[in-house]
Amino acid sequence: MKEIQKVRYDGYSYVEGGVCAAKGFRANGLYSGIKENPKKKPDLCLVFSDVPCHAAGVFTQNKVQAAPVTVSKKHLKQTGGKAQAFILNSKNANACNPDGEEKSVRMCQLAAEKLGIPTEQVLIAQTGVIGQTMPIEPVEQHMDALVEGLSHKGNEKAAVAIMTTDTVKKEVAVTFAIGGKICCVGGMGKGSGMICPNMATTLNVITTDCAISSEMLQKALDAVVKVTYNCLYIDGDQSTNDTCAVMANGLCGNTLIDRENEDFQTFKQALYIVMSNITKMLAKDGEGATKLLECNVSGAKTEKDALAVAKSVIASDLLKCAMFGEDANVGRIACAIGNANADFDIGKFCVTLASSKGEIDFFKNGSILTFSEEAASRLLSDDEIQIHVTLGDGPAKGTAWGCDLTYEYVKINGDYRT
Amino acid sequence: MKEIQKVRYDGYSYVEGGVCAAKGFRANGLYSGIKENPKKKPDLCLVFSDVPCHAAGVFTQNKVQAAPVTVSKKHLKQTGGKAQAFILNSKNANACNPDGEEKSVRMCQLAAEKLGIPTEQVLIAQTGVIGQTMPIEPVEQHMDALVEGLSHKGNEKAAVAIMTTDTVKKEVAVTFAIGGKICCVGGMGKGSGMICPNMATTLNVITTDCAISSEMLQKALDAVVKVTYNCLYIDGDQSTNDTCAVMANGLCGNTLIDRENEDFQTFKQALYIVMSNITKMLAKDGEGATKLLECNVSGAKTEKDALAVAKSVIASDLLKCAMFGEDANVGRIACAIGNANADFDIGKFCVTLASSKGEIDFFKNGSILTFSEEAASRLLSDDEIQIHVTLGDGPAKGTAWGCDLTYEYVKINGDYRT
Repeated sequence: MKEIQKVRYDGYSYVEGGVCAAKGFRANGLYSGIKENPKKKPDLCLVFSDVPCHAAGVFTQNKVQAAPVTVSKKHLKQTGGKAQAFILNSKNANACNPDGEEKSVRMCQLAAEKLGIPTEQVLIAQTGVIGQTMPIEPVEQHMDALVEGLSHKGNEKAAVAIMTTDTVKKEVAVTFAIGGKICCVGGMGKGSGMICPNMATTLNVITTDCAISSEMLQKALDAVVKVTYNCLYIDGDQSTNDTCAVMANGLCGNTLIDRENEDFQTFKQALYIVMSNITKMLAKDGEGATKLLECNVSGAKTEKDALAVAKSVIASDLLKCAMFGEDANVGRIACAIGNANADFDIGKFCVTLASSKGEIDFFKNGSILTFSEEAASRLLSDDEIQIHVTLGDGPAKGTAWGCDLTYEYVKINGDYRT
Repeated sequence: MKEIQKVRYDGYSYVEGGVCAAKGFRANGLYSGIKENPKKKPDLCLVFSDVPCHAAGVFTQNKVQAAPVTVSKKHLKQTGGKAQAFILNSKNANACNPDGEEKSVRMCQLAAEKLGIPTEQVLIAQTGVIGQTMPIEPVEQHMDALVEGLSHKGNEKAAVAIMTTDTVKKEVAVTFAIGGKICCVGGMGKGSGMICPNMATTLNVITTDCAISSEMLQKALDAVVKVTYNCLYIDGDQSTNDTCAVMANGLCGNTLIDRENEDFQTFKQALYIVMSNITKMLAKDGEGATKLLECNVSGAKTEKDALAVAKSVIASDLLKCAMFGEDANVGRIACAIGNANADFDIGKFCVTLASSKGEIDFFKNGSILTFSEEAASRLLSDDEIQIHVTLGDGPAKGTAWGCDLTYEYVKINGDYRT
């Protein structure tokens, strides 16, 4: 069961449609044969807005950046934050290739020519094996079909085309009111290994019909990425290809958001809802995962301290294994708390674990409490586990998400290329 | 095959005897029943010098410190760097227990009374599950036997008694000449999970008959730990109990080393040989490991940059899985290099992999090279893999050690407590 429990937010309604949920967006995905694949899983997709969009992006902080990252950054700079199309592929990361940039630009060109828009208004993201030559022929051969098949119902095909070792597609969309207009923010993402905080994570496309300036869009994206994708930890490897871009076409007719007013906050909250849900989906479908882990830290001096502790807990391989084994080896949580690069009084931390099957206090003021092994096993038998840590040092909070570490993770990554 | 290939060093000879190899040291280990165990694996040990020693220690940097860490630090401080005995146990970490410190002190007391030495001249280290009450009765009941059984041939019993999930004991000793006297440095260590750089790692006892002041001993230990144990990475979790202490009894009769002269360098090199070999043993016997991985980085601006890159490569879960699967998914090495918190020109890195089964260049100037899959599979089928990275930015070098990530790691840590 890889479906997540979605939190409800007042004033926001979940809707179907992913990247096509907002007005004026169409998408398509197909199998082009970038890598031969008997199952013909789609590997190429396109998201297109009927009108030019304000756009913003965040990218991997890995020093080794794949060609599509370089090209998308360049395009956003050249246009001053505008885009009308986003092309993505799986099955090849186009990273560490001598001719990589040329190929990424060529993909944008092919799409632009067929769509009748400038090349620099096309963003690109690619994912797959690093250090394999990107074949351009499949893209050339399928561009006509890709563009001609663009549809308001193409979101699912697009979401499937970016999947790598993901076992389920990831799409979320919400509607909300802004100045009397009904707006929409929708998105899709893919995981599911080489995922670590301090980044822009994985491939993600967010679309909205809200009118918002590129500058404000970037500001909202930066703020939300910090508390969503950057709080996601699967395995500590930050990919060379991480890309998250938002395109806003303004078709919902609201007054342009060009400063941090109330409308900006309303929009930012919608972006948070979409991105936090995708983050949880990415965590729950982490490579080999059987459980979603969520660590909520409160009582920290600063948000930075709270996030450092939450991430340290979520990143512990030993805890991840114990959660897979449904073993209440909670000393590993104390160990991970102590390893966090954060400022707090070590004598005051309390730890409670919770799931739909129960809730147990394990640590109080830094010392272990006695607990029932039976109740602990029951609690841990669920597929979503919350780890609540209170530090007793201040008012700040933070949450990080991850998953358990399983045989399947090792299996997938022992022969990912084959 | 968990034996490591030992490097030869001019002027130093490997000898048997571990912590008893140096003159005047005796040891013993036995099963006391700290945790019931049908196989009666030894769980308690003692290392004793006939005469008082200068001593130095390095300890975990985890904020959550187990009681034995607190007590050993206090004893070293009280004595100004002296010790005559070192008591250790496995099967219980005595961490996060409200009565932990009391129990650790009591263990030192029990040993001191029986040995007829001051309590504060006893160091202590404990390892096992965090957050379980330490039973003192087994130690009380077995102290007489433990002390009475001390022997110049007791090193192996001691080395076995500190093993947890280790599959082999870890002992190394070398002899060398210092001012015309034959000196010896020997040691033992235990792994094999919850191991991460930036620490004093695991439990380690080093003994020597060299005469060296406490201050110089600490200086040598700090310098060597930085390039040995702190360059070891199994799973990114820094334990609450990491302890490495050196005891020097001076019985070899050399002139006391009390400054950084040539004798100091000779001694420091012996310490490096012992500790680097134990580091490799710990890596090769990492939980579930089937392969020792060594990453040598050269051409860095500074040693710090070199070590950051080496550790980032060794820490990559994805690379560790690929090595287990003997899959030349070397793009993951580029990804890990790029993730290192180090200053270097990303366009210049070269990567070569080597083992006793071959050597292959995979990256040149940041781009992938074509290679034979067949030759790569052969190379990776060995149980020791060297990853050579050159950065082309300067003269500095650094090495880090680790192991592959396997099903067995997940299995061991899914039910470690049971």
